[in-house]
Amino acid sequence: MKKVPHRGFEKNEFEARMQRIQDRMFSAKMDAILLTTEPEIRYFTGFFSQFWESPTRPWFVLLPLSGKPIAVIPEIGATGMAATWVDHIHTWPAPQPKDDGLSLLGSVINSLRCRYGRLGVPMGHESFLRMPLGDYARLTDMLPSFEIIDASEDIHWVRYIKSSAEIEKISYICQIASDSFEALPTFTKAGDSEREICKRMRIDLLKRGADSIPYLISGSGQGGYDSIIMGPTDRTQSPGDVLIIDTGATFDGYFCDFDRNFAFEHANDSVRRAYTTVYAATDAGLAAAKPGATTSEIWLAMWRIMENGGAQGNNIGRLGHGLGMQLTEWPSNTEKDGTPLETGVILTLEPGMEFAPGKQMVHEENILITEDGAELLSRRAPAELPIIG
Amino acid sequence: MKKVPHRGFEKNEFEARMQRIQDRMFSAKMDAILLTTEPEIRYFTGFFSQFWESPTRPWFVLLPLSGKPIAVIPEIGATGMAATWVDHIHTWPAPQPKDDGLSLLGSVINSLRCRYGRLGVPMGHESFLRMPLGDYARLTDMLPSFEIIDASEDIHWVRYIKSSAEIEKISYICQIASDSFEALPTFTKAGDSEREICKRMRIDLLKRGADSIPYLISGSGQGGYDSIIMGPTDRTQSPGDVLIIDTGATFDGYFCDFDRNFAFEHANDSVRRAYTTVYAATDAGLAAAKPGATTSEIWLAMWRIMENGGAQGNNIGRLGHGLGMQLTEWPSNTEKDGTPLETGVILTLEPGMEFAPGKQMVHEENILITEDGAELLSRRAPAELPIIG
Repeated sequence: MKKVPHRGFEKNEFEARMQRIQDRMFSAKMDAILLTTEPEIRYFTGFFSQFWESPTRPWFVLLPLSGKPIAVIPEIGATGMAATWVDHIHTWPAPQPKDDGLSLLGSVINSLRCRYGRLGVPMGHESFLRMPLGDYARLTDMLPSFEIIDASEDIHWVRYIKSSAEIEKISYICQIASDSFEALPTFTKAGDSEREICKRMRIDLLKRGADSIPYLISGSGQGGYDSIIMGPTDRTQSPGDVLIIDTGATFDGYFCDFDRNFAFEHANDSVRRAYTTVYAATDAGLAAAKPGATTSEIWLAMWRIMENGGAQGNNIGRLGHGLGMQLTEWPSNTEKDGTPLETGVILTLEPGMEFAPGKQMVHEENILITEDGAELLSRRAPAELPIIG
Repeated sequence: MKKVPHRGFEKNEFEARMQRIQDRMFSAKMDAILLTTEPEIRYFTGFFSQFWESPTRPWFVLLPLSGKPIAVIPEIGATGMAATWVDHIHTWPAPQPKDDGLSLLGSVINSLRCRYGRLGVPMGHESFLRMPLGDYARLTDMLPSFEIIDASEDIHWVRYIKSSAEIEKISYICQIASDSFEALPTFTKAGDSEREICKRMRIDLLKRGADSIPYLISGSGQGGYDSIIMGPTDRTQSPGDVLIIDTGATFDGYFCDFDRNFAFEHANDSVRRAYTTVYAATDAGLAAAKPGATTSEIWLAMWRIMENGGAQGNNIGRLGHGLGMQLTEWPSNTEKDGTPLETGVILTLEPGMEFAPGKQMVHEENILITEDGAELLSRRAPAELPIIG
């Protein structure tokens, strides 16, 4: 039995995270960064709540150039934030649509030491602002001493390298999902609907130790499926069908993200060939994924195999991505991404291709970049398309 | 056994939704509305995917002044969107950080009939922009013929009144969660941890027919709990403990959102009194919730009972809210909200109070506003605090 990792993080982990972002802020001449989104606020404060599911109230955290994060949050979160390593917590009785924390936030920002007159806000790729756009405009009007500059790349780079505690959590949920995928043929048969199969897998994942399953999709069709982001549907599985299930389950707020393919009773040659081609592409990706190489080298290594194997296209737009506190994180394995790999990076390898009109074959594995190259966190998919029944 | 509602919606439901928003757009002199967020895009197009869990790619839908919605989306979503009632689907091979759909979106907006020169974007309370802020600035630069105006209130009002098909889905998931809460004492005992209890309830909800459980929290403590948005933790339940569990489970993309309280083996008088006070507040809320009354009248009816019952405060900031495609929707039951109730509105009644320092008591029920007043969608909590064991 796998050992359940320790939940949460030690204080020195948060100190190290702050040190890394503050080093970057110092170089970029940023007095502070304003955060509004769940993963970023959790990363720097440790505040971990499902309450983000409610869109009503904005939450704010400021990362100053020195010292701990400063929280400016709805009163409902005061107890939870007080249990983190954060010392300075300002609250207001949200929701108050006419001034939902804005004047409080403005006064806290204006009370910060202003050395450079620059406030970082994540504004680039894979970032959002989680507060009303109108309120953001009003906030910037309150900050005449600050130029607003993009902080998204700094956040991406700091989150890019995972600590050993983060790796342990991701590895654990990958093992749970591997166990569940391997057990799937024992609770699945021809005649079952996608929805029934996915429901059983959700329950199985929870029983094995997943905390939640924010993502569990399926696609199926005779001789192949046409999408990997919709479903599950009520479509029942017939002999010759191919089923894909992709899952993002979590442990302590960290994700796995990989898929598995299954055929029912038999599979035609075209599907089998596509499967082995994409499997070989994963091999090439595993060989290419090492410190010093780039995401684009991984992409090229995998795409070359699939192109030679008859790929007619790829509508996913990339062949894998970062993984951690979110189902998908920066960067992307694309032709032009070019992000260099480093020890401690966790990625998905997700080779996929259209092998016949409207028929896709997509594999996915989760890997850790180590000094010696790629280490699989998911247990590798079978080399041949598994047949159920 | 409850009948499982039909999944999805008939085309005439989407036509009616478009008609309602277009009537408001006509009054507001808006040529189009730009949507970027999951519930809004799902509401008008029917596009329903878990893939929003990935933050990488932006998705755009335009609501024109006449005709159907227009999708401008990543290629990976083409198959899924083509299966909806939408006819015009523009795609690009996302992710492409340097131009992630921006020039395509700009050209589609600029090709719309421009009668008023006004483009609506949700910018107000309970709205977000789900695209990078830097890209939004570049987009607006591409639209010299358009003034950008807030569309969030129009969207709120259109979504506020639920159709019979929406009511059926919410009612169904409320019945499933009611069954699960009533069964909870059969799978819970003193000595269990919050985490174990919540995991069993997640599995129970799935077995009873919930599709997913995006929200399931717990709080517990000797003689009361101090937060209703954190947890579950590894805290085990001892005699005299009070446990709250709050859940947002879904069926076909529609939520329930209500909680239940339990004591273990015995409960002190102060807790029992708080429970019956908050229960009485719910009675007052049920009596006040009828067409023509406002959210503030509901608030006042409930708060008066709790104040007379010894409430020392409420740090939640409101006493219930809208419910539907999201765990919480506009409006809020607050002192100043003042939104008039109408037939077909679904709300939560969520009276809560601090009854001793650091001790809260919160109840929650889900209701439908009908011509005759409030109709419970959740099965009412017991009148006395239930004791387990």
